[in-house]
Amino acid sequence: MTLTGKMLIGQQSLHGHRDAIRAMNPATDTPLEPAYAGCDAEHVEQACALAWAAVDIYRETSLADRARFLETIADNIEALDEELIERAIAETGLPRPRIQGERSRTCGQLRTFARTVRLGEWLDVRVDNAHPQRQPLPRADLRQRHIALGPVAVFGASNFPLAFSVAGGDTASALAAGCPVIVKAHNAHPGTSELVGSAIAQAVKQCGLPEGVFSLLYGSGNELGIALVTDPRIKAVGFTGSRSGGIALCQAAQARAEPIPVYAEMSSINPVYLFAAALETRGEQLAEGFVASLTQGAGQFCTNPGLVIAVQGPALERFIHVASDLLSRCPAQTMLTPSIFNAYETGVSALAKHARIAAKGLAATGPNHGQAHLFVTQAPAFLSNVHLQAEVFGATSLVVECKDAEQVRQVSEHLEGQLTATLHIDDHDLPQARALLPALERKAGRLLVNGWPTGVEVCDAMVHGGPFPATSDARSTSVGTAAIHRFLRPVCYQDFPDSLLPAALGHDNPLGLRRLVDGQREA
Amino acid sequence: MTLTGKMLIGQQSLHGHRDAIRAMNPATDTPLEPAYAGCDAEHVEQACALAWAAVDIYRETSLADRARFLETIADNIEALDEELIERAIAETGLPRPRIQGERSRTCGQLRTFARTVRLGEWLDVRVDNAHPQRQPLPRADLRQRHIALGPVAVFGASNFPLAFSVAGGDTASALAAGCPVIVKAHNAHPGTSELVGSAIAQAVKQCGLPEGVFSLLYGSGNELGIALVTDPRIKAVGFTGSRSGGIALCQAAQARAEPIPVYAEMSSINPVYLFAAALETRGEQLAEGFVASLTQGAGQFCTNPGLVIAVQGPALERFIHVASDLLSRCPAQTMLTPSIFNAYETGVSALAKHARIAAKGLAATGPNHGQAHLFVTQAPAFLSNVHLQAEVFGATSLVVECKDAEQVRQVSEHLEGQLTATLHIDDHDLPQARALLPALERKAGRLLVNGWPTGVEVCDAMVHGGPFPATSDARSTSVGTAAIHRFLRPVCYQDFPDSLLPAALGHDNPLGLRRLVDGQREA
Repeated sequence: MTLTGKMLIGQQSLHGHRDAIRAMNPATDTPLEPAYAGCDAEHVEQACALAWAAVDIYRETSLADRARFLETIADNIEALDEELIERAIAETGLPRPRIQGERSRTCGQLRTFARTVRLGEWLDVRVDNAHPQRQPLPRADLRQRHIALGPVAVFGASNFPLAFSVAGGDTASALAAGCPVIVKAHNAHPGTSELVGSAIAQAVKQCGLPEGVFSLLYGSGNELGIALVTDPRIKAVGFTGSRSGGIALCQAAQARAEPIPVYAEMSSINPVYLFAAALETRGEQLAEGFVASLTQGAGQFCTNPGLVIAVQGPALERFIHVASDLLSRCPAQTMLTPSIFNAYETGVSALAKHARIAAKGLAATGPNHGQAHLFVTQAPAFLSNVHLQAEVFGATSLVVECKDAEQVRQVSEHLEGQLTATLHIDDHDLPQARALLPALERKAGRLLVNGWPTGVEVCDAMVHGGPFPATSDARSTSVGTAAIHRFLRPVCYQDFPDSLLPAALGHDNPLGLRRLVDGQREA
Repeated sequence: MTLTGKMLIGQQSLHGHRDAIRAMNPATDTPLEPAYAGCDAEHVEQACALAWAAVDIYRETSLADRARFLETIADNIEALDEELIERAIAETGLPRPRIQGERSRTCGQLRTFARTVRLGEWLDVRVDNAHPQRQPLPRADLRQRHIALGPVAVFGASNFPLAFSVAGGDTASALAAGCPVIVKAHNAHPGTSELVGSAIAQAVKQCGLPEGVFSLLYGSGNELGIALVTDPRIKAVGFTGSRSGGIALCQAAQARAEPIPVYAEMSSINPVYLFAAALETRGEQLAEGFVASLTQGAGQFCTNPGLVIAVQGPALERFIHVASDLLSRCPAQTMLTPSIFNAYETGVSALAKHARIAAKGLAATGPNHGQAHLFVTQAPAFLSNVHLQAEVFGATSLVVECKDAEQVRQVSEHLEGQLTATLHIDDHDLPQARALLPALERKAGRLLVNGWPTGVEVCDAMVHGGPFPATSDARSTSVGTAAIHRFLRPVCYQDFPDSLLPAALGHDNPLGLRRLVDGQREA
């Protein structure tokens, strides 16, 4: 297909009237065609009105129909083939295998949610049968299911132009829950967004759904985002991006006449703990793994290992030495956008004021080339200096040298909320790892042993979430099938005749769900 | 036991230093001994420090131990016997059978949560086994469980001095989730609070738990509440009370460096729809049921039927006539507190400026006697006047006469969020009821057919929640076993050795839970 530079409002393609967005190829610092003119208040109104008109129909589609819709989106994205791959590479500077892998992940994610929809456990059906004879009062017939919250506004991430953008995890889980979605396209990849948006809009049509199930809007600045979040028909928000951006959306959502939930995935430095025995026996191997995880994708991952915590001594010295040596040979890499590159440079400079530079990667050889950095500081400095906890989005990490296990504990308790925390241990380290675990469970959404936090599996058990500021809502995950729960709420039906009950709650269990009936789980 | 007028900080009883609270017997307008001096910042600090010290131990108690703790609380409350019943009657003016029934409900609720804890489904265990051979990348071993959010601040309700106060639904569900609880005693029933608080503190001791699992603080004004909600060690809030009170707590919680969830149950007028055939065939019976539900407990229920919606005509005229006749013979009833009585009088006066009075109950014969009221208005007035949707806490309801089904729909879409919506229907009304259902599902947490909204069953399927302003978080319920989910968050464990995994996630499933393993539910 030819890129049009138009937004999608339901099945309609429209040109905007406001300031245009134009993607930049970060590898060449050249602008890409076409321009995407921003939408105005009237377009937001149209998209929200269509979404509102769609919600009661879409949220009651059968499990099979909804699953098929998600699978059709995946099929349509795959059919975009090379055009999508090439555009995404041009707009992000990410290498081809990464974009191909991300497309697989995106389509796999949609199909995984299709499976989850069909399984129906997310309905959380509970049935308490009537007890007309109970004393002193009879019990009514009570049945609970979950329904969609309503239209959801999704703000895609810059660093996952497919897997966390227009048809990414937020969109897939909201659509799975039965919520219409309005996406604000990320300004860094408008063409990729148009391609994927068209694939979704086409699936809406193929599946005979109301057109308001999906819209895709463009707009520079914050105006469009705030207009979406404050529209009374929007009932929840999914966001992946900066801490300041996430907090602004949370505040706008809370200031509404009817406050709504915002799921913002914001800021995490992902502490990695190197325990004594592991460091002693395989410090070099750990240094290799660390540098590979840190520099992968120019370090542009929410789960990038931005903090290393260990007890000082010769083994840690050797780790720092080997990691520095490896890092100093890492080529600079093209970052996603000029503004991300500039923010990275600013972040590195700020960190350099407070911590010692242990190593730098190879210098830039092209535009927007981020140079990897490794910093070192001591625990007392870390504990007393809030700047050392600021996320620097890119291939930069800080080693915190601790005097002893007690100082490791203090540093851990001092941490803000995190997406991940990683423990590198050998058998001898188990007692100390066990002692630290309660603090880490309080601090992070995912705990890893002897791995690296980059690489987030889309599965049932994944938690890509964590206490503030990792996310705005620690009760949720934005990756994995449990993400569907973010967009649902329970409704109870009391003494309903069978003919008026939704199918999930019918007396004969027509959907064949495993329901909780009178306190017992059905087989 | 003798009431001491002291707060409870863990196992310690302490006198406060601030302005004292003293209960009033609303039936006689006389003060009750003893006085409860308010706590100061130092007491909040102590209670939070103890709760924080308890959290990692308490949240990892075994399912059996935690269940036994909840059951011990119930046993201890029952052992308070007549002393508790008499004090609760004196502090609330509620009749003896109501207080006795509420004690049963409170203890039954604790035992229901004990059963839920033992069942372990709230852990939502998910296991995705490792696929070391997967291409292009291996899959790690990933396991998810839910853990307690941390210490919870609970603000009890005036209208349920047992079932929604110190050991009520919020406390029971937070303790079930593994959260230490700090209760701010309601100012209207400090003695009842001390009795029940002592029963909990005693159970903490009997079960050998860390003392910080429970504290009970007193304080007049808002200072104590804000101090609790803004303490960084408090991780969630349960509240039942006024809309203004709930919103104030939500705002304080959002303004924290780390925002936390507030579950505030606030304001609902619980629309009751009378459909044509039902109204025609059994209008008198409906009027009887309506007046009984409206005036029960002086109308002091969150689910009180404060709004009746029907199409105008002779059948509705007859309903209003019969209801008015019944209502005019209802004696005035003692309300819970002088301030609730005053607020009721103010609310009735405000409503009288905007709607016609159809009937009044018998006049007051004692202090704080609330007189029942029935108002009537027309749909266009209701649609254009926001005052007609304000909750009047007490035995007052408003009938909205609609021209036709379309106007019924308009009124429904115009409603704020509600705890309940009730449909009175006969078979002939089914098509119209079905047409209205999507709107009602969007507006309310519980939908009833041919019943009355007062009376909230504690069971698995109950939803006592709903869109704002019914509650601050429509994704939750504050009654029923699903209330436990409010105080939990997911944590994922990646590639953990079995010896480091929590028991719920162990490779051999040592707790015998029904886990979701590789997408399949275990038997």
